[in-house]
Amino acid sequence: MKAKYAIGIDVGGTNTKFGVVDRKGNILVQDRIKTNDKDSVDGFIEDLASKLQPMIEQYGGTETFVGIGMGAPNANYYAGTIEYAANLKWKGIIPMAEKLEDRFKLEAKLTNDANAAAVGEMQYGVAKGMRDFITITLGTGVGSGIVIDGKIVIGHNGFAGELGHVIVRHNGRLHPGTGLRGSLESYASATGLRDTTIEMLQAYPEKPSILRSYSMDELTSETVFKCAEQGDEIANEVFKFTGTILGEALATFVLFSAPEAIVLFGGLTKAGDLIMQPTKQAMEANLLQVFKNKIKILYSDLKEADAAILGASALVW
Amino acid sequence: MKAKYAIGIDVGGTNTKFGVVDRKGNILVQDRIKTNDKDSVDGFIEDLASKLQPMIEQYGGTETFVGIGMGAPNANYYAGTIEYAANLKWKGIIPMAEKLEDRFKLEAKLTNDANAAAVGEMQYGVAKGMRDFITITLGTGVGSGIVIDGKIVIGHNGFAGELGHVIVRHNGRLHPGTGLRGSLESYASATGLRDTTIEMLQAYPEKPSILRSYSMDELTSETVFKCAEQGDEIANEVFKFTGTILGEALATFVLFSAPEAIVLFGGLTKAGDLIMQPTKQAMEANLLQVFKNKIKILYSDLKEADAAILGASALVW
Repeated sequence: MKAKYAIGIDVGGTNTKFGVVDRKGNILVQDRIKTNDKDSVDGFIEDLASKLQPMIEQYGGTETFVGIGMGAPNANYYAGTIEYAANLKWKGIIPMAEKLEDRFKLEAKLTNDANAAAVGEMQYGVAKGMRDFITITLGTGVGSGIVIDGKIVIGHNGFAGELGHVIVRHNGRLHPGTGLRGSLESYASATGLRDTTIEMLQAYPEKPSILRSYSMDELTSETVFKCAEQGDEIANEVFKFTGTILGEALATFVLFSAPEAIVLFGGLTKAGDLIMQPTKQAMEANLLQVFKNKIKILYSDLKEADAAILGASALVW
Repeated sequence: MKAKYAIGIDVGGTNTKFGVVDRKGNILVQDRIKTNDKDSVDGFIEDLASKLQPMIEQYGGTETFVGIGMGAPNANYYAGTIEYAANLKWKGIIPMAEKLEDRFKLEAKLTNDANAAAVGEMQYGVAKGMRDFITITLGTGVGSGIVIDGKIVIGHNGFAGELGHVIVRHNGRLHPGTGLRGSLESYASATGLRDTTIEMLQAYPEKPSILRSYSMDELTSETVFKCAEQGDEIANEVFKFTGTILGEALATFVLFSAPEAIVLFGGLTKAGDLIMQPTKQAMEANLLQVFKNKIKILYSDLKEADAAILGASALVW
């Protein structure tokens, strides 16, 4: 019997989302678990199995599945490993493909989580038909997938497209996961936006802000967004600052591959124009003449996580 | 009669070098002119013709030539134009391929000067056999050519690989040609190195330096190199500062395409370890774990300009 389904898994810094995908790109069922709930990768795989195994049974068991595709931070496409991921609890080199194959008795392939999303975007999303584009995930961390001439850039050792770690502020904010200072992820992630909020509240103690009424635990990017919508000055400044840094970084990315578009997705994009406007403005201000007013910045129109699940599943077809 | 030769032309910010190349990649004859000697592009083409036309005659006239390949800053491969080049006198959009075809009655193709050099490097130089590498030219300006999976990255509008213009210092030194602040070219070019020298001499008026005995006109990167070799403290600091900025930028480039190697060439590489050592150190300090001690930094072993002439000529075979 010909395999009809694939499993797509998207490992994010906070949540891991997964689903059963058919050959047409329909996600038939999906669910999620917390990525860092367990300390060990084996604990993570058991959490995953408790929800994924019933899905596999529901759709006819392993023989109806072609395999498992996983997008994960710092995934090595060639080796099937996750290596030194800054935002995950599992340190060192994790033989993830092997562990998945052992547990589920299905072939497993890995790629960078953001690369997986870029594939999904190219096949089913706003980048459909584009040959040159870059996707940037603004989630717990900042990920990226680079498509040049219709193909994902993998690189010599399999780790191309880690644009969240480019340095945007010399000697800037320390990134605890990588030890780097001033990287994009330290500013343009949900974590970075929260750090910026706390810094600004400290820097302007005399300026009134609804943000001051929230506990540290409550100060998420969603909270800052809600406050900004209500006209809170500091919350608006936080988005302006974050968008400006992101836009400057995008101008640098354009110099590399001259993409037709940059596709943004992930939690921070929910802030809409609050983040998009300063991002566009800063990007244009830093573009070379030959690129000015030519690079589209788009929001993904796929349901959150769908792009990554679809793209991951596409690894095994 | 089958065409046996190609013309390769390398347009640099200071000199334009050109030669007759055979199918095996031998440069049979070469010469140079000053790029910015004449105000107009037509004046440049006449200067070029005065030396190139006799070469064409010497090797049998136009019928023995397959065409002209040119590498130039801001060259658009698709359109055959040079557009808004920061380091050239010709402003706006120059239909260079058309002008060359009119003057020499030979088919003409253009690409980014650094892309041309990268092709030369891949076919005949230290990058022979590599599928993923980046070349960086450290000349009057800073150029780059990016090879991914064995192919030059051209991009959606033909202007990919302009890494000299990435921002390395937020609100840093103004680049008069682009209007950008803090771009790599403002620091890691011969011009940038000279600016750094002048800034350091002003910043440390009490520190003795042989550099103070040179006139502004004499303060070239060669002069600074000679003084550094003689142990001059400021001259050594200048190279350390320049290499550090370059190395930080290289770490960013690695995140993009995960190359096997970065190939440096151009005037500044003559400083050898003076520039290489701080460059390597800064690159390694800013690399993600997965790239540490894995990225080779190489000097081109092709004769200066040969890589670019060879690569340019390869456009028309």
